[in-house]
Amino acid sequence: GITAVHATLVYWENTEESFQKIEEWKNNFDKHKDIICHAKTTNDILEAKKNNKVAIIFGFQNSAPIANDIFLVEKFFSRGLRFMQLTYNNQTPLAGGCFEVKDSGVSRFGFAVIEEMNRLGMIVDLSHAGRQTCLDAIKFSSKPVVISHANPIFFHKSLRNINDEVLIKLAKKNGFIGLSLYPYHLKNHG
Amino acid sequence: GITAVHATLVYWENTEESFQKIEEWKNNFDKHKDIICHAKTTNDILEAKKNNKVAIIFGFQNSAPIANDIFLVEKFFSRGLRFMQLTYNNQTPLAGGCFEVKDSGVSRFGFAVIEEMNRLGMIVDLSHAGRQTCLDAIKFSSKPVVISHANPIFFHKSLRNINDEVLIKLAKKNGFIGLSLYPYHLKNHG
Repeated sequence: GITAVHATLVYWENTEESFQKIEEWKNNFDKHKDIICHAKTTNDILEAKKNNKVAIIFGFQNSAPIANDIFLVEKFFSRGLRFMQLTYNNQTPLAGGCFEVKDSGVSRFGFAVIEEMNRLGMIVDLSHAGRQTCLDAIKFSSKPVVISHANPIFFHKSLRNINDEVLIKLAKKNGFIGLSLYPYHLKNHG
Repeated sequence: GITAVHATLVYWENTEESFQKIEEWKNNFDKHKDIICHAKTTNDILEAKKNNKVAIIFGFQNSAPIANDIFLVEKFFSRGLRFMQLTYNNQTPLAGGCFEVKDSGVSRFGFAVIEEMNRLGMIVDLSHAGRQTCLDAIKFSSKPVVISHANPIFFHKSLRNINDEVLIKLAKKNGFIGLSLYPYHLKNHG
């Protein structure tokens, strides 16, 4: 009964390795075209549902693939990337990660990249970002942002979970949070 | 009358481009071996002086070439890199740049890289770093660090110049500052 999957293509991979991952997925779509397809638009998901296929949406769990090159955002978008996290736990040139002692918030380059993602229609994903980074991105982004996988801190306290202030501001800007089943994000995981 | 030059190999170049720059310099050394040579040790500089050659010391003005891969520090060191800046104006995965509104200071990955540079004998260069990043790195580094090109703020106020607190702490850890002749770092540049 699964309609669509947001699939993580990369975490720490560099530019070239990330393009390579996209090629591998193209092979998957060719090989298994009876059950999956690549979704680049909402309509692709609706079509997949009609045809009893699972729609696969591409996501990066880090911004490492774009390094310092803002033009890579469009290059990855044109190959079907629709979600990108600004950070994966650690600091990046764009923003601060949730495991950093000091979260920088969104950096100069980070604001430029969010603008570019907004322009293209690539979704800013704040999973694994620090609190200040979440607040900066929610405020700055002209389109709704998401936290694709994390839980509220009021449910379970963890560096990866999200506090009330961020949740409220996210909701006010029409963003969403996808809940996480990863053991360390849940209660009684020990 | 020049004894040695700290030559900038890269600013924003990625890993592969940076290895390529080193190859280009090898060609320079082959082609002009009557006047220049590659210095990897203090002794190489003394030898160059004796032989009326100018010693060239390799430096990176950014940490972009190592991306997220700490093992690249040793790979570049083994090819003769002796100076690396943590940042070039903007934030990196390692630290905060002097042009950022909010300087993160040294990040989790940044501390690990400084340890690795200390171990190898690669010099931590804090030119173009933010104030907090300078303070964090000076305090944390087990070996003296440098600010290879900048001037004191008491001489001329500029985002790239260095305030008294940093200068005093740098001196107390036996670090050094190399002065800059870049117009915007000087008085009356307008």
